[in-house]
Amino acid sequence: PEESQSVVFDHAVEQLVPTELSLLLESLPIEARCARWLQVPDELKTSVLLGMRYQARDSIFLAMDESTLDLILRSLDAECLIELADNLTEEQIEKAFSYLDSKQQNWYQGAAEFDEKHIGRYADHKLVTIPPNAKARDALRALKRGTIDLCDQVFVVDKQGLFLGVIPVSMLLKEKDPMRMVRGMIETVPITVLGTDPLITATETLEHSGGYSLPIVDNDGRLVGRITQATALWIMKEHFESQLMAKVGLTESADLFVPVFKGARQRAVWLGLNLLTAFLASWTIGLFENVLSQVVALAVLMPVVASMGGIAGSQTLTLIIRGLATKQVTFRNSWALSKQELGIALFNGVGWAAVIGVVTWYWFESGVIGLVIGIAVMANILVAALSGVYIPLILDKCKFDPALSGAVVLTTVTDVVGFVTFLGLGTLLIL
Amino acid sequence: PEESQSVVFDHAVEQLVPTELSLLLESLPIEARCARWLQVPDELKTSVLLGMRYQARDSIFLAMDESTLDLILRSLDAECLIELADNLTEEQIEKAFSYLDSKQQNWYQGAAEFDEKHIGRYADHKLVTIPPNAKARDALRALKRGTIDLCDQVFVVDKQGLFLGVIPVSMLLKEKDPMRMVRGMIETVPITVLGTDPLITATETLEHSGGYSLPIVDNDGRLVGRITQATALWIMKEHFESQLMAKVGLTESADLFVPVFKGARQRAVWLGLNLLTAFLASWTIGLFENVLSQVVALAVLMPVVASMGGIAGSQTLTLIIRGLATKQVTFRNSWALSKQELGIALFNGVGWAAVIGVVTWYWFESGVIGLVIGIAVMANILVAALSGVYIPLILDKCKFDPALSGAVVLTTVTDVVGFVTFLGLGTLLIL
Repeated sequence: PEESQSVVFDHAVEQLVPTELSLLLESLPIEARCARWLQVPDELKTSVLLGMRYQARDSIFLAMDESTLDLILRSLDAECLIELADNLTEEQIEKAFSYLDSKQQNWYQGAAEFDEKHIGRYADHKLVTIPPNAKARDALRALKRGTIDLCDQVFVVDKQGLFLGVIPVSMLLKEKDPMRMVRGMIETVPITVLGTDPLITATETLEHSGGYSLPIVDNDGRLVGRITQATALWIMKEHFESQLMAKVGLTESADLFVPVFKGARQRAVWLGLNLLTAFLASWTIGLFENVLSQVVALAVLMPVVASMGGIAGSQTLTLIIRGLATKQVTFRNSWALSKQELGIALFNGVGWAAVIGVVTWYWFESGVIGLVIGIAVMANILVAALSGVYIPLILDKCKFDPALSGAVVLTTVTDVVGFVTFLGLGTLLIL
Repeated sequence: PEESQSVVFDHAVEQLVPTELSLLLESLPIEARCARWLQVPDELKTSVLLGMRYQARDSIFLAMDESTLDLILRSLDAECLIELADNLTEEQIEKAFSYLDSKQQNWYQGAAEFDEKHIGRYADHKLVTIPPNAKARDALRALKRGTIDLCDQVFVVDKQGLFLGVIPVSMLLKEKDPMRMVRGMIETVPITVLGTDPLITATETLEHSGGYSLPIVDNDGRLVGRITQATALWIMKEHFESQLMAKVGLTESADLFVPVFKGARQRAVWLGLNLLTAFLASWTIGLFENVLSQVVALAVLMPVVASMGGIAGSQTLTLIIRGLATKQVTFRNSWALSKQELGIALFNGVGWAAVIGVVTWYWFESGVIGLVIGIAVMANILVAALSGVYIPLILDKCKFDPALSGAVVLTTVTDVVGFVTFLGLGTLLIL
């Protein structure tokens, strides 16, 4: 197997496809990864690094020799330097900065003012700017001179760097009067994105605009760069990957291979948090030791009660979290949603409670136990529906990310409610 | 609250933002949704429908009068008709088809040959084609005539519809000789996407190409349309949303509000499946009734053992499923991954087993119970790590989607293994 993997790698090196090489390097254990890295041709090294996730990239930086590092630092532009900044020391960033030309230095400083949550930091700078007193002819020339393939509009910027507006390329191409002043061609109200807009907000503004790119301006109205659909694509990817990883307490940057101890530490926090909730569930069960020691069937059936509540609740939770992200779920329609979810829960609660009650009745030859578990399952599914609506709403209100902590809180609730009703009813009706 | 929601809606209607209206309509209960729909201006109706999810859209189609339906059918182009086809009857599709001009009819027929998993079905047709014997000048003219804002390249297509190649717009703009034949300007090996490529594959090809659009061709080499970054963006969104929804047995098209019975039915299957696994866990526990009735502490502590295995396993599972999607995880590196995951599991297993053992020892004043749960937790975490690597690999090999079923299978394994080791050890060491 090691053999065949190296064949794949050699092939990718020959084909010079940086993204493939990035993926392949990430899929190797650290030692093999660093060995293979040496085979990456110098001219691809920077793109290959940029295509990797933060942690995987870090493992390569840690093993990198001085001359390769210098080679990479020399090859960066403002955007790449921003992207790699977290992997670099202050000193290395300064060095790379000194290698930039003055235009790139300006872009870098503009972007570095924003933090990682803001779109300004990830502004794209492959754009064509022209002064307001240029003519249509000049704009077309600037466009032809530019080596930029993806130019849907040119940006009009004055001497102070203030953003004045955009002119679509299609309009420039159609303009009959080559001497027309650019200032007069500016579309009335250009949609702009603020540098301090959160990443997802900026992506949505772009999507709703229907265009390929939008200008990003800072609070003083200066052009910071542009956001393009290419940027939107990776923001979207990272956003969803973060959500998927957050469900198990990990981050998007998590690497398949990290030093074992480091990996263990990253995951330990989540295990510990969940241990607390498990102990809480155990403590709840412990309140009913008396009935448990006399009716062992209750102990046997506990997973059924917990599972039904947990699953039903997580269905509601998932729908609500998605709706929160698009702002379709708010406290405003939460009551309508609760009615909807309670209605669904009533159908499934009654139906499955009946099934479980009957199975239990036959299994343990006890109608009472069947009744107890039936009621407990139904109650738990109803509580789960309400919790599924309100837990994410409340977490969101309190500025916690429901995608991260919603499921933990929800299963804690359904576990505790499930065990209390089940074992509590058991104590009342059986003992 | 109802009041304020209608204010928001009226505002969006005034601003004429179709995507906002789509989101708002989706956030309303069906009755209110259909009432509000009547307020949407006719000229926005089609875009508003297109911006909604399948199920929500369906609720509006069900309440739609004949004349509005006809208005919408008349306003569709080939792409929109494909998008709405699932909401329409055969008859309605035929009617809409008859309203298309012959060019759009061709595009529609070309796209309809592909099924929902294939990129050909979702081809974009806002493109400029030119014949190979045209001149650079003609191509530029076609470009200026086109009302298409986002044109990064023109597509060279012969009389039979065969795709010959692309010419970047930047190249056309720079061309000095207006009489140069387009045939001679074609780039040597254009990257193309096959109409039968799966959606995600096509998206990746586009991403790796670094461009804005790529031609889509059918098996006979005819141009079907193009894939653009805008298409890639919604494919990516639906892909990740499907994954998030699949984790709770729902689909991406799920609506916040559906008729309650329909909603209950959609969720019932998943509850039933999980009930089976819960019963399996219960049955496993039932094998140890003897020890449970004598040592009630074991019943109390069961959630801790199950939870630790389930959480640790889901962390591995999530990493592996993500790696499978990028083809970074295969059977080829599964052994290296197992070693990695087992290493991490050993750290966390030993660490948390010790914590849990000591807590248990103090809680129940029994060293043996502490020892039993410690060993069980450690064993379960180790098994969870291995299962987290191999369950998704095997599911994938058997053509099951690990994102859908991986978690169910995994928790079944960790539940059963956890209960057997914990209660089995308890029987051996305590009784």
